[in-house]
Amino acid sequence: MDSPTAKTSTTQTVTEIRQWLGDRLSTAPAVREQHGKDQTWNPGAAPDAVAFVKSTEEVQRIVATCAKHRTPIIPYGTGTSLEGHFSAPFGGISIDLSQMNRVLEVNAADLDCRVEAGVTRKQLNTHLRDQGLFFPVDPGADASLGGMTATRASGTNAVRYGTMRENVLNVTAVMANGEIIRTGSRARKSSAGYDLTRLLVGSEGTLGVITEVALKLYGIPESIVSAVCPFPSVEACCTATITAIQMGLPVARIELVDAEHVKAFNAYSKLDLVVTPTLFLEFHGTEASAREQAETFAAIAEDLGGGPYSMATKEEDRQKLWQARHDAFWATKSLMPGKDSFATDVCVPISRLAECVTETQADLAANGLYGPIVGHVGDGNFHVVLYCDRNDAQEYAKVKAVYARMIDRAIAMGGTSTGEHGIGSGKRDYLAKEHGPALSFMRAVKRALDPDNIMNPGKNVAI
Amino acid sequence: MDSPTAKTSTTQTVTEIRQWLGDRLSTAPAVREQHGKDQTWNPGAAPDAVAFVKSTEEVQRIVATCAKHRTPIIPYGTGTSLEGHFSAPFGGISIDLSQMNRVLEVNAADLDCRVEAGVTRKQLNTHLRDQGLFFPVDPGADASLGGMTATRASGTNAVRYGTMRENVLNVTAVMANGEIIRTGSRARKSSAGYDLTRLLVGSEGTLGVITEVALKLYGIPESIVSAVCPFPSVEACCTATITAIQMGLPVARIELVDAEHVKAFNAYSKLDLVVTPTLFLEFHGTEASAREQAETFAAIAEDLGGGPYSMATKEEDRQKLWQARHDAFWATKSLMPGKDSFATDVCVPISRLAECVTETQADLAANGLYGPIVGHVGDGNFHVVLYCDRNDAQEYAKVKAVYARMIDRAIAMGGTSTGEHGIGSGKRDYLAKEHGPALSFMRAVKRALDPDNIMNPGKNVAI
Repeated sequence: MDSPTAKTSTTQTVTEIRQWLGDRLSTAPAVREQHGKDQTWNPGAAPDAVAFVKSTEEVQRIVATCAKHRTPIIPYGTGTSLEGHFSAPFGGISIDLSQMNRVLEVNAADLDCRVEAGVTRKQLNTHLRDQGLFFPVDPGADASLGGMTATRASGTNAVRYGTMRENVLNVTAVMANGEIIRTGSRARKSSAGYDLTRLLVGSEGTLGVITEVALKLYGIPESIVSAVCPFPSVEACCTATITAIQMGLPVARIELVDAEHVKAFNAYSKLDLVVTPTLFLEFHGTEASAREQAETFAAIAEDLGGGPYSMATKEEDRQKLWQARHDAFWATKSLMPGKDSFATDVCVPISRLAECVTETQADLAANGLYGPIVGHVGDGNFHVVLYCDRNDAQEYAKVKAVYARMIDRAIAMGGTSTGEHGIGSGKRDYLAKEHGPALSFMRAVKRALDPDNIMNPGKNVAI
Repeated sequence: MDSPTAKTSTTQTVTEIRQWLGDRLSTAPAVREQHGKDQTWNPGAAPDAVAFVKSTEEVQRIVATCAKHRTPIIPYGTGTSLEGHFSAPFGGISIDLSQMNRVLEVNAADLDCRVEAGVTRKQLNTHLRDQGLFFPVDPGADASLGGMTATRASGTNAVRYGTMRENVLNVTAVMANGEIIRTGSRARKSSAGYDLTRLLVGSEGTLGVITEVALKLYGIPESIVSAVCPFPSVEACCTATITAIQMGLPVARIELVDAEHVKAFNAYSKLDLVVTPTLFLEFHGTEASAREQAETFAAIAEDLGGGPYSMATKEEDRQKLWQARHDAFWATKSLMPGKDSFATDVCVPISRLAECVTETQADLAANGLYGPIVGHVGDGNFHVVLYCDRNDAQEYAKVKAVYARMIDRAIAMGGTSTGEHGIGSGKRDYLAKEHGPALSFMRAVKRALDPDNIMNPGKNVAI
């Protein structure tokens, strides 16, 4: 696909699209570069051109042209994905959906909405606030909802509200042959046909370009109580979490913050927390039930040597706490100026989480590496930000080895190579290890829906 | 596939399988007939033989033989599906999984389990009870969990706990080429590769034979409060439901029972309810929160002219109520001796539910038909049992026309042709209307994973 012939036809593709898209098709080096390289140490590769689209029909027209010339298509939202999802190793057209940013409908009675793919999660929540509604999925970045759908994104609320997998009702997508499909109705459940919605959620642009998304919404809870609870160990944090979930406590957020992160939060976000493994929590409900939940958790924590337990109900205090959590990446980065950083995640059954985290910490320590950990502990999902100097070949090799062992460890514990960051370009080598013979059926689906391999080639299951 | 050549090779398939499966391969007419005809008025068609299997490896061996001779394979669980899912219009081998009925593991700390496909939902819940755990998905019948997975089953708890779509962690399946795959890990969430789990959930045996299922479990709530609330109209029932859900009341069950069903329940299940549209409800939580939820709903109901509201906390009273609900089909059937019955369902956005139900009731009345309605009203899903004498051509035609209009109405309202019964043989004609161009991509997936069309041919999206 990267042959001179292909390059010639890409030139033809660019010429044909420019005829009608005009200056919304850019070949400026800076624009191309920005659309080919993410914030991670994935090397990246620039597309041949970037198309700034305004409608599903424009996407369709571009895809039809690309299909004719077998030119690669790479969808782009806010550029905040973390595994080289939007790099263009085979060149092609980056379709930037950020100008498709209209909230198309909000159906308050049905608790659903329909948005264009470029609407970001914060934009949607600002739009919804007056109606007493919210959308819960919250990855660290203010990502686009199309991108969050394509990468099966998640966040701190997933333990109660689910991930994009559970919260997308249907999508509109332009498929590799240029056809526009809608993958389902607005019904909350359906047994009619194959679940194309879930097939596209997490497909990372390799099966189609998602242009609209219908989402589930939730009423803003009457009462929200946030809490912070230090613990003597990561194990104690995990045991408290397991106990809470087993007894059916409907905790909305339960986040593990390791001692390294606590240090970083104190410095970066001006907090004043005890430097020890800590849980950040949030409880949603009526005033009585949210308080009851918070108090129940306090009792669980006390039994495990946790505390002092502090609760916050004021919006301002809560916001400060969760903004610190969302800024985790930048907080640790500020402690390591000049170092390259490498954010990654795995997810294991919750019973193995303490073991997986502590073994990973021990491995980091044994190799003299800095790798602070935060975790969506209610889901068994945790993140490590690995720091190193990429020009130091020895340090770089150590980081890569710790990284590989962490993924192997997670898979061996019945877990997955990534809970929410995705495969992109970065984790493709682990798919066979994780899925075994199932991978060949994923690839059969890819070949069936995109026989010429033009949709984000080289990513996820694609060869 | 139904040609004499195909029949000859089916004979060869039967001969080869019998060599090692012995008398667990049955060609007895009664066994074949029972495995080809469900309880509905779908005509049914018997398979050529029925294989009673005991392991995934036995299924694999049968599939390999069938693949060699292009013999159709029809998975069979408890035979309780409702859309002709297991009839054998092209003959072939019915694979009866009911003897694969071991609970393989229960991981209490992770709130998950792994079962063979033939384990039924009641069997699993009996197994779990001592550990304080339960599995919530509850279709009317005591169906097998493999069948429930294959048909994307649902039930009365879906409004809080989700359907099989949300509650299956992964499956083991034998694919059309005889390969055994596991579609995912035990991690609660993953962004690694395509969602084969959700692709197999609801595929109705057309992509592979599901032999094991990993499921999410839940702690039995500390307190359960059931309630019954009569309302002046179906609209009032629906408005109360929308209000409760919008305010985030975490209702566990909220079921619409129309006046016809109330009459039938009173007679069949010895209840003493006011004959008017009624909601059956259930609230799960701590003692304080379940009571608070029940009282909040009482206030909502009163505002809408509902009541008198009666609550039940005793296990015995609650069981009686929900057994009546699960026996709805038999209750109405007992009022129509000698009539054929035809259970069907649709699902719409909840804001359209009252309109969809009342228009359907009006259509039934205008045609002089008996069609009692129950609904999983929190999901916008409702069921009609249509009664008629099939030998009365005029009445039969009326029923078919009312049925078709109900589906068209649901789709036009942004809903689906089936919320939980599935497509099977019965609703195939509606797939194109519901999915439009998306259907061709479902069929492309089918062709890619089962190129010889041996997996439950003629069902769901299969031609």
